[in-house]
Amino acid sequence: MARSSLYQQVAAEVRRAIYAGELAPGDQIPTEADLMEAHGVSRNTVRLALGELENEGLILRMRRRGTFVRERRPLLMRPQDEFVRLDQGVPRFDAFVHAVTAEGRSADQRIEVSIVEPPEDVATRLALADGGLAVVRRRLRFVDGQPYNTLDSYFPLDLVADSEISRPGDITRGANRVLEELGHPQVRAVDDISARMPTSDESLRLQLEPGTPVVIYVRVGYDAEDTPVRVAVSVLPADKHLIRYELERH
Amino acid sequence: MARSSLYQQVAAEVRRAIYAGELAPGDQIPTEADLMEAHGVSRNTVRLALGELENEGLILRMRRRGTFVRERRPLLMRPQDEFVRLDQGVPRFDAFVHAVTAEGRSADQRIEVSIVEPPEDVATRLALADGGLAVVRRRLRFVDGQPYNTLDSYFPLDLVADSEISRPGDITRGANRVLEELGHPQVRAVDDISARMPTSDESLRLQLEPGTPVVIYVRVGYDAEDTPVRVAVSVLPADKHLIRYELERH
Repeated sequence: MARSSLYQQVAAEVRRAIYAGELAPGDQIPTEADLMEAHGVSRNTVRLALGELENEGLILRMRRRGTFVRERRPLLMRPQDEFVRLDQGVPRFDAFVHAVTAEGRSADQRIEVSIVEPPEDVATRLALADGGLAVVRRRLRFVDGQPYNTLDSYFPLDLVADSEISRPGDITRGANRVLEELGHPQVRAVDDISARMPTSDESLRLQLEPGTPVVIYVRVGYDAEDTPVRVAVSVLPADKHLIRYELERH
Repeated sequence: MARSSLYQQVAAEVRRAIYAGELAPGDQIPTEADLMEAHGVSRNTVRLALGELENEGLILRMRRRGTFVRERRPLLMRPQDEFVRLDQGVPRFDAFVHAVTAEGRSADQRIEVSIVEPPEDVATRLALADGGLAVVRRRLRFVDGQPYNTLDSYFPLDLVADSEISRPGDITRGANRVLEELGHPQVRAVDDISARMPTSDESLRLQLEPGTPVVIYVRVGYDAEDTPVRVAVSVLPADKHLIRYELERH
């Protein structure tokens, strides 16, 4: 097992305190001398650790004033809006692109389309027969040029084989619209939210720093016959995302 | 910084593989000999590591057959149900107790009531004036005798000072019912869901194993005047909880 180097351990401890809220945005972080003493390490090690946290956008080093926890603005996701907007007939933007550009940041994504035997939990959710195939549209999304999250959307191959969904490239009007045109508008969705530590593959793909959990957000969309027609799996680095639902008593 | 011992490091690596799904429920985990070789450690270290995972309920050691990843059933939370059930006039159970006993497990909780100056983010959400006070009802919840999650509910002191909410002990009909009786039924709620690594305090209180993230679920309840009357902060160990929302197109 790879053991992390000394500076990474110091960085991990400060990072943990920031994510845990013990150090809040705007707070000054301990001085180099304090960190040297607390961890029994050299000034050089402390500087490497702080350099790492600066690269991650967690802290801001200001000449003469000290080092501060940076304001982080997690991307606010509103799964309900996205679902409602599906059939409003207005030109719709990708919900992610919309949320990002609304904050004045730049959004970008890479899409890969392939035909696969999906992971078992996805196959179950799509009610596929044994060995049944799905089209998966895998997105890796970027904010300001940094990898930000992934969204893998699975569709039963039987349903979408002859449509744009199974062809490479972006679908301007959205894959959900294509499902409608195929006679399978999604009228109901079940959203499951959980969290865990990332797989090594996810860490690599999303360039995660050690100690960053991911939120797993899975939406299953059902058509009017209650047939599952889409399973969307999002992997959201926990430090960069907030999911919000609003409920009203009717 | 405390460095974890060798057996804890081996345990952490197997735990990570389980949480990440690389080792799925029912899978046999590598033999002692395999683990000794993979980590360059003694048999005794491997046994200590497996003992730890067994204690956590992650694995099952079966004589002669080997060691397997245990089926875990995360507690399914349905925040919408809880909100709807609020005013159905039927004798209502605590949603947590209900979910747990429905699975044939035993639920228990410890409640502490105190008057505090709440953390800044809670004060902001409750729209309290500077230095404003809140009553907090802190719950530590147990399933089958094990600490499972926490739920801290904050109420503006002005609102609830003379009610059962500010007195110690359980409220059989629920604090939300008391809010209704005080003329502040919650008609709208905003749920924010995020995740992070636990604070050391949370790790201790919830007896978390290293490497277990927590889901932070915050509900703000608003009355008919759109005044925030309750902020409920749940800390949910990520390996033991799943949050589900259902959406319908109207």
